[in-house]
Amino acid sequence: MEKKKMEAKEIIYDGESVKIYSTDDSGYVIQKFTDVITAYNKIKKAVIQDKGKLNCAIASKIFGILRSGRVPTHFVERLSDTEIVCRTAKVFKVDVIVRNVIAGTMAKRLGIEEGVVPAHPIVDLCYANEELGDPFINEHHAVALGLATYDELEEMNALAIKTNSILKPYFADRGVLLVDFKMLFGRLDDGRIVLADEITPDSARLWDADTGERLDKDRFRRDLGRVGDAYREIAKRIELE
Amino acid sequence: MEKKKMEAKEIIYDGESVKIYSTDDSGYVIQKFTDVITAYNKIKKAVIQDKGKLNCAIASKIFGILRSGRVPTHFVERLSDTEIVCRTAKVFKVDVIVRNVIAGTMAKRLGIEEGVVPAHPIVDLCYANEELGDPFINEHHAVALGLATYDELEEMNALAIKTNSILKPYFADRGVLLVDFKMLFGRLDDGRIVLADEITPDSARLWDADTGERLDKDRFRRDLGRVGDAYREIAKRIELE
Repeated sequence: MEKKKMEAKEIIYDGESVKIYSTDDSGYVIQKFTDVITAYNKIKKAVIQDKGKLNCAIASKIFGILRSGRVPTHFVERLSDTEIVCRTAKVFKVDVIVRNVIAGTMAKRLGIEEGVVPAHPIVDLCYANEELGDPFINEHHAVALGLATYDELEEMNALAIKTNSILKPYFADRGVLLVDFKMLFGRLDDGRIVLADEITPDSARLWDADTGERLDKDRFRRDLGRVGDAYREIAKRIELE
Repeated sequence: MEKKKMEAKEIIYDGESVKIYSTDDSGYVIQKFTDVITAYNKIKKAVIQDKGKLNCAIASKIFGILRSGRVPTHFVERLSDTEIVCRTAKVFKVDVIVRNVIAGTMAKRLGIEEGVVPAHPIVDLCYANEELGDPFINEHHAVALGLATYDELEEMNALAIKTNSILKPYFADRGVLLVDFKMLFGRLDDGRIVLADEITPDSARLWDADTGERLDKDRFRRDLGRVGDAYREIAKRIELE
């Protein structure tokens, strides 16, 4: 692949905060990060200046860290301030969520106080189906829905746990508590299952380890203000600014 | 244990359709089946004549079948038309649901048509907590909530699958499709994990194998009428009348 030739062609995924474009090479796509932020199934929506740039930088850095840790991902390289090149992957419609600390919907659904630390990390699965509200599922449902096989789910689970075992201490060393994060996995043409989703403050809960201050999308969800500053702080903690 | 001495003393669980009483022997309780039927977290409630007797007979018969199949249960023996004697068990607050056919809330939540048959039986877990609406959980949540350990959940899962592998063909031979059923498990004083819950048309979906007619509590939930007749039909099919 020659970087100079890579150009976005047709849009193939038109998300609010991320758009994916085909390229001349069917084996690669270009992903563009936007400044748009949404929550509650897009009921809430805003523009956060520089979020696209910040998330592109954060995601690229984290992909690099995972590469060093031998977690396979779809990431190839950064193309511009707001664009990355990725290998084309067939994405499993299963959100895999790892939780080191109880927060958000899980706390609410199960009547647990936010901030409680379980003895083991928790892995949740959701059916990535916006129309149904991304319902919570287990592996039997995923198989029944034809989303993945038991073997594929086991592999995704192992990759999710491995990703967490790399990122949790990485953030901890920088004074950030990795509370939880959501991932999608996909299969490359060569058959490998890879992380096919960026990890940013849009999809991860990141708390200041000392103060508990939210440095992620919860600032937007909960109207806490200074959303952009929080993303900038994460970029700073991981030595990007 | 001498049967003649067994008498209900104090009420220890005052449910709508089932009440549990202590006895003179702390190792045993008496469970009484009532004619009351409830649905949707007790929003809907009615009295179905003879339901207590029918469920007592059906539950006792099924406990006997499971005993023959070497599934450990808390059941000791039938005491009267509406009462059974059970071993005292410390119940895990985890509803274990086995599904051979997609129906009910699962169909709705996941956008699957009722009646779809998955390639493998599905096992669901719910946190048995009425106040929270018995939320759907996975094994990690159960452990985090302190409801059971991973090993205990694995044992319950194995018992649930075994129970299904006995009851599904048993009902099939009698022209009844075992669509799904809910169970609670408990631990006896001697340490054994046992099925500590009755299986009746209150807690199992049972469809006529030929016509698909509902022979269970869905007749009440969905206002289909002839609720008592459906329970009577199940009793007849398993040779009780």
